[in-house]
Amino acid sequence: MLGPGDDAAVLRAPDGRVVVTTDLLLEGRHFRRDWSSAYDIGRKAAAQNLADVAAMGADPTALVVGLGLPADLPAEWLDGLTDGFGDECALVGASVAGGDITRSEQIVLGVTALGDLGGRAPVTRSGARPGDVVAIAGRLGYAAAGLALLLAGRTGEAFQELTDAHRRPRPPYACGPGAAVLGATAMADVSDGLVQDLGHIAAAGGVRVEVDPDALEVPAELTAAAAELGEDPLRWVLTGGEDHALVASYPAGVRLPPEWRVIGRVTDGEGVQVTGRVEARGGWDHFRD
Amino acid sequence: MLGPGDDAAVLRAPDGRVVVTTDLLLEGRHFRRDWSSAYDIGRKAAAQNLADVAAMGADPTALVVGLGLPADLPAEWLDGLTDGFGDECALVGASVAGGDITRSEQIVLGVTALGDLGGRAPVTRSGARPGDVVAIAGRLGYAAAGLALLLAGRTGEAFQELTDAHRRPRPPYACGPGAAVLGATAMADVSDGLVQDLGHIAAAGGVRVEVDPDALEVPAELTAAAAELGEDPLRWVLTGGEDHALVASYPAGVRLPPEWRVIGRVTDGEGVQVTGRVEARGGWDHFRD
Repeated sequence: MLGPGDDAAVLRAPDGRVVVTTDLLLEGRHFRRDWSSAYDIGRKAAAQNLADVAAMGADPTALVVGLGLPADLPAEWLDGLTDGFGDECALVGASVAGGDITRSEQIVLGVTALGDLGGRAPVTRSGARPGDVVAIAGRLGYAAAGLALLLAGRTGEAFQELTDAHRRPRPPYACGPGAAVLGATAMADVSDGLVQDLGHIAAAGGVRVEVDPDALEVPAELTAAAAELGEDPLRWVLTGGEDHALVASYPAGVRLPPEWRVIGRVTDGEGVQVTGRVEARGGWDHFRD
Repeated sequence: MLGPGDDAAVLRAPDGRVVVTTDLLLEGRHFRRDWSSAYDIGRKAAAQNLADVAAMGADPTALVVGLGLPADLPAEWLDGLTDGFGDECALVGASVAGGDITRSEQIVLGVTALGDLGGRAPVTRSGARPGDVVAIAGRLGYAAAGLALLLAGRTGEAFQELTDAHRRPRPPYACGPGAAVLGATAMADVSDGLVQDLGHIAAAGGVRVEVDPDALEVPAELTAAAAELGEDPLRWVLTGGEDHALVASYPAGVRLPPEWRVIGRVTDGEGVQVTGRVEARGGWDHFRD
């Protein structure tokens, strides 16, 4: 309604509620200029915030961005970043509504995303109930495999899909509002890894989540990369973050469209169990195999 | 409605529109730990964003905050910062709705404020019309004088009101929505200095702003500090930012409550003139005396 150039932006919030989430991204810690283009960094920074909005069951509407930029940064770099923000927003019909630029030694991105619930109840992390099924939409392990390849200096064409997945995640945005319509009882964005993010759902709901590892896809690309690096591809699937898949619980008997794959169920108890393989109660730090 | 602990927060937006603004604040550039307590840094970081919301004629409703914090930062420092954010929000009935913490070498604060227009039209920078009067609410020059004193190492009790004004501004929040009700035609937060921020109003409206320097208060504290430092106190009033006063234009003949002081008028033309003293067309860089 009113974008950049005033003290603040004014956005539509037709639902009468607004969803909001913010992240701070620092050069060296969250991205590297030698691994990712400015455009990809913009795409990814937007994606991780837009995915958080979708994980509430909301439609993303806008980003506002605070930029800390070094004095010697080429103007084309900022153009690339801005294009990346804009193009990722365009995927979901959102736009960049405003921002702030300041001088900084390192590149700093403060990204805030807003969204609209369209009359739906927000899908929180806390609603999973014993008997529910657990399902996943989107990719798992790709970004983690891509990061492992980049760290090992294996950036050849054979694994480009994986290194691209690290640089530019593809969250299944539409599945977020879709899950709310389908009656999801709980939902989270898989940003820390499946086991850890399911751990948040288990803890918030006071329930246990059991994952069937046979239901988890281990795509051929991951198997090939794991063989190359001497890694276990299922570990990437279970603990890799940054693909921004969505994981949700649904009442048993729900008919799910093909974007959602059932991978487990909710029971009484606590923690996350990957059947016959892994027991994890907390997050990444407590993951054991 | 739903605060920290999920992928995103959900806030009321009863108006059906939401006002949003964001700022990035960096240690060393925007604040110094040796000059300001954690509590004061939180107060100020909140204040400058809440003031931007008020400058649209809106009531601030919430902050979301991204924090980049060094590993060796004492826990009490974060507690102080959080208390500062909370107490400044409480002044306007807002709250901290969510956030994100990441490790950083320097302290980085990414602050986003949201607000509600309560059915009012937003007051932008662009609506000033020839014949309007220009009025100010809040203090001018205090924070700039305080900064000059801190830079000169003059932090004695005699000037504490001024150094405190640098550490902890006191924006006249209620005057923002109040201005919208009174029929303000344009408004801005004075964050860059009166001449520069009036320059934004002049440029956005395609008008000229004439300021009568005799109408500008130069309080005794500023005169005393200026004498101590060999400065011109009116220069602080005209060009000092960070007090987060509000400046607005109103149709001639408006009856303004005592919080607002008329300091000039809008005419045909362009730029900002401080009668008999200063001519400025752009911002700070173009200020001449």
